[in-house]
Amino acid sequence: MKWSEVGTQACSVARALGVIGDRWSPLLVREAFGGATRFEEFLDGVGASRAIVTDRLAKLVEGGVFERKSYQDNPPRHTYTLTDKGRDLLPVLLTLQAWGDRWLDDGKGPPFSIVHDTCGHATEARLYCTHCNEPLGSDISGHPRPGSWARDRKRTKRRLRPRRD
Amino acid sequence: MKWSEVGTQACSVARALGVIGDRWSPLLVREAFGGATRFEEFLDGVGASRAIVTDRLAKLVEGGVFERKSYQDNPPRHTYTLTDKGRDLLPVLLTLQAWGDRWLDDGKGPPFSIVHDTCGHATEARLYCTHCNEPLGSDISGHPRPGSWARDRKRTKRRLRPRRD
Repeated sequence: MKWSEVGTQACSVARALGVIGDRWSPLLVREAFGGATRFEEFLDGVGASRAIVTDRLAKLVEGGVFERKSYQDNPPRHTYTLTDKGRDLLPVLLTLQAWGDRWLDDGKGPPFSIVHDTCGHATEARLYCTHCNEPLGSDISGHPRPGSWARDRKRTKRRLRPRRD
Repeated sequence: MKWSEVGTQACSVARALGVIGDRWSPLLVREAFGGATRFEEFLDGVGASRAIVTDRLAKLVEGGVFERKSYQDNPPRHTYTLTDKGRDLLPVLLTLQAWGDRWLDDGKGPPFSIVHDTCGHATEARLYCTHCNEPLGSDISGHPRPGSWARDRKRTKRRLRPRRD
């Protein structure tokens, strides 16, 4: 299977990766959450080459994550702002960040702390069950619906618990 | 900046992407949560080429996400199981999946539903504040600590709210 076909799998993880499953794209989204809107701000913030930033911004516009608007005609200049779909990526960034904080901090502690402004306290990205409000851990299972990628493969229930030796 | 340097940024998102910021790697982790342990199972589940699956599994072992163990000598065969660090990627997969469910379902509904086995109800990945238990939305801010990537750039507070036009 080629990568270009992965986004068509009936699996939401695969489809999501079809849009942001690139190494630089989530960093562009990170910069947008930090307030970047102009090309040079993304370039400065992400540190990739101009060609990569140009290409990835165009793909994220095409994928509906960013909206591109002209703010100057001569020379032509544009802003890139997150759409609703793009802003909805915040939980993905926060869980990525939390994982990096826990496992890749070089023993120096997280480089960045998150404050929940509404309550005024430091917080972490943690998932809770929307039904019972208990933390979600490995006590979950996945149930493929008709047409899903897992169902195609003749599995009717997917454990979400990895096997151990 | 080259991609190989991104994982060294003092930003947990960048560092996390240094380990799993590849298009295929999160799908290998998905397969492991679904119970895959053997090379052929990953190959079948992900649909990439043998060369890609071999390369990405080796990188994920190097990155501490998978543990590789021999289960047969002749011919040599190995299992790949998630480490604690690897299992801790579940929130990242669940938020990616939830985003794909909401925005990339082709109008057919999510291909996969998640059940919280402990309470027995369907659930979604949603983030709550670990302090006040309210849902975490855009009402958060980031505060770079000394040495962080954002601080290097002379910012002492990062909004996590994207600008609008």
